[in-house]
Amino acid sequence: MRATLIYGAGDVRVENVPDAALREPTDAVVRVLAACVCGSDLWPYGSRPKTERGDRIGHEFLGVVEQAGADVAGLVPGDVVVAPFVWADNTCDFCREGLQTSCRHGGSWASNGVDGGQGEAVRVPQAQGTLVKLPVGADSALLPSLLTLSDVFPTGHHCAVTAGVNARTTVTVIGDGAVGLCAVLAAKRLGAERIILMGRHKDRTDLGREFGATDVVAERGEEGVARVRELTGGDGTHTVLECVGLRPAIETAFAVVRDGGTVSRVGAPQYRDVPADFGVFLRNITLTGGVAPARAYIEELLPDILDGRVEPGRVFDRTVGLDQVPDGYRAMADREALKVLVRP
Amino acid sequence: MRATLIYGAGDVRVENVPDAALREPTDAVVRVLAACVCGSDLWPYGSRPKTERGDRIGHEFLGVVEQAGADVAGLVPGDVVVAPFVWADNTCDFCREGLQTSCRHGGSWASNGVDGGQGEAVRVPQAQGTLVKLPVGADSALLPSLLTLSDVFPTGHHCAVTAGVNARTTVTVIGDGAVGLCAVLAAKRLGAERIILMGRHKDRTDLGREFGATDVVAERGEEGVARVRELTGGDGTHTVLECVGLRPAIETAFAVVRDGGTVSRVGAPQYRDVPADFGVFLRNITLTGGVAPARAYIEELLPDILDGRVEPGRVFDRTVGLDQVPDGYRAMADREALKVLVRP
Repeated sequence: MRATLIYGAGDVRVENVPDAALREPTDAVVRVLAACVCGSDLWPYGSRPKTERGDRIGHEFLGVVEQAGADVAGLVPGDVVVAPFVWADNTCDFCREGLQTSCRHGGSWASNGVDGGQGEAVRVPQAQGTLVKLPVGADSALLPSLLTLSDVFPTGHHCAVTAGVNARTTVTVIGDGAVGLCAVLAAKRLGAERIILMGRHKDRTDLGREFGATDVVAERGEEGVARVRELTGGDGTHTVLECVGLRPAIETAFAVVRDGGTVSRVGAPQYRDVPADFGVFLRNITLTGGVAPARAYIEELLPDILDGRVEPGRVFDRTVGLDQVPDGYRAMADREALKVLVRP
Repeated sequence: MRATLIYGAGDVRVENVPDAALREPTDAVVRVLAACVCGSDLWPYGSRPKTERGDRIGHEFLGVVEQAGADVAGLVPGDVVVAPFVWADNTCDFCREGLQTSCRHGGSWASNGVDGGQGEAVRVPQAQGTLVKLPVGADSALLPSLLTLSDVFPTGHHCAVTAGVNARTTVTVIGDGAVGLCAVLAAKRLGAERIILMGRHKDRTDLGREFGATDVVAERGEEGVARVRELTGGDGTHTVLECVGLRPAIETAFAVVRDGGTVSRVGAPQYRDVPADFGVFLRNITLTGGVAPARAYIEELLPDILDGRVEPGRVFDRTVGLDQVPDGYRAMADREALKVLVRP
């Protein structure tokens, strides 16, 4: 079968790899209907050292069950399923607490002999716990929005939930990438009435307004901070959703959060530490968030997509076939595309 | 009147100062019955540059109202009152949210013309919002425990509350100082059944056991971390209450917290940042806490002291008169005394 591999910065290739096949009775094989390129894929695409052998890549996909192992209950060939961006048994103590990213028997796609999502098919370990059956056909027009359940929508939701967003909290979202826009959508869905989106790409922030942003701040750094403070009577917002992962973004987050407020971060951190000095201490700022346990949220978010109440799939502004995946990476890295959908 | 001043590291003196007197109609004057030395007073005592003129010091006190300004309702001369360690109007939006430490019209003791607590009397700004009337006489045997409502007990409580301690959470408390011991007491009071106290002073950890600690870890650094992990099946605890403020303590906190868990810190930080790298991100660790809004908690904690259900006053192991305050500082700095009560 064909699948995507990364050989280093700027070097993504689609090649022949061994067919996905059952190995354990808890596995399933899923034929991929739709996958996508994640903002976090751009970190290795930007900086990974060159290697002789490529590594599989991709962790967001949706597809049709082709085979299910003997120990996989509730899934049969033909079922349309979505996979969260880590696999997990969904039964261990961490999973029961809703932290499937720390599952005692889980792991990552595209590593240790597990397929990546950007390919024709995927062997899914712990398939019964990992996969969520979707009540749609393989030709559903909802597939793009349903695909966001794999990562980007639950990630925005995790950011808003851990920050404590509700109808009484003001919100700043930092970053107008797909996660930032989904964080806006999630904050709106949780009842937030004031959502300030910090981003400087007008086409993206325009979509952010449609998703629920009430204000857009295009300025960055000190100017951006001043603008958010001006919009909030000098105080900043109760919650700040940091959806970038770079140091200036997390520093901005601490600068625009209100005393007693919460910064939640879901941008994979490209920094090692955060400010936690006496000033932060005096202001009682909480820092939360982390890698989103997407699996924990899929059942909650699914009905709103099925009913058309939210359309997170609008973050996809380009669709490519599997052979065009390398160009999809390039387009996202060059900010030509917001998020690229892959139809193998 | 006599009051305590600090002239630099190791140099605390009791001197004559102007009598506390009403300035604003919102002021009260309180004659101090009991004050104390705080662990945080030891930071300037340890490192403050020498100055020609001393600065007032002390922020924990309890006393009798001597005079109340025209705009102070509900307090009359003779009332026994406790003051939280910052003063606040208790009516602004931050105060209504329980964050009196960020009060729009509040401030600190012993600065900007406001008296410190370690003296014969104190002018209390925003007295109606700041002071809490205690239903006891000036000779009550409960005064030491009631005095802890000023800072150390609500600080331990704030640590436990912001960490989310409840009957289902395991707890590690880092530090066997008065705040750490009060954090143990607070965690127990909130229902925690497993409380691991990290501390190496046996007399203090013995009191910690009486307050509710189920395990004591005397080891520090990597050994201490290994011991806590061993006690928790390798996982660490759901909550970690960091009651020291030094870098090794906060690093230990991140090392012993369970995935998905919360580190709360109430030790005034003597560091500038905390680890927040990809490993912390993958583990979904929350960092919370900060300076405790003691005022927010006094009414909740008071009944348990009045009923004898908790005895936080047991952290006081030495009592001095006002003139012996300098020796009280020395005794605490030398770890001869856990916490020093001052009876002016």
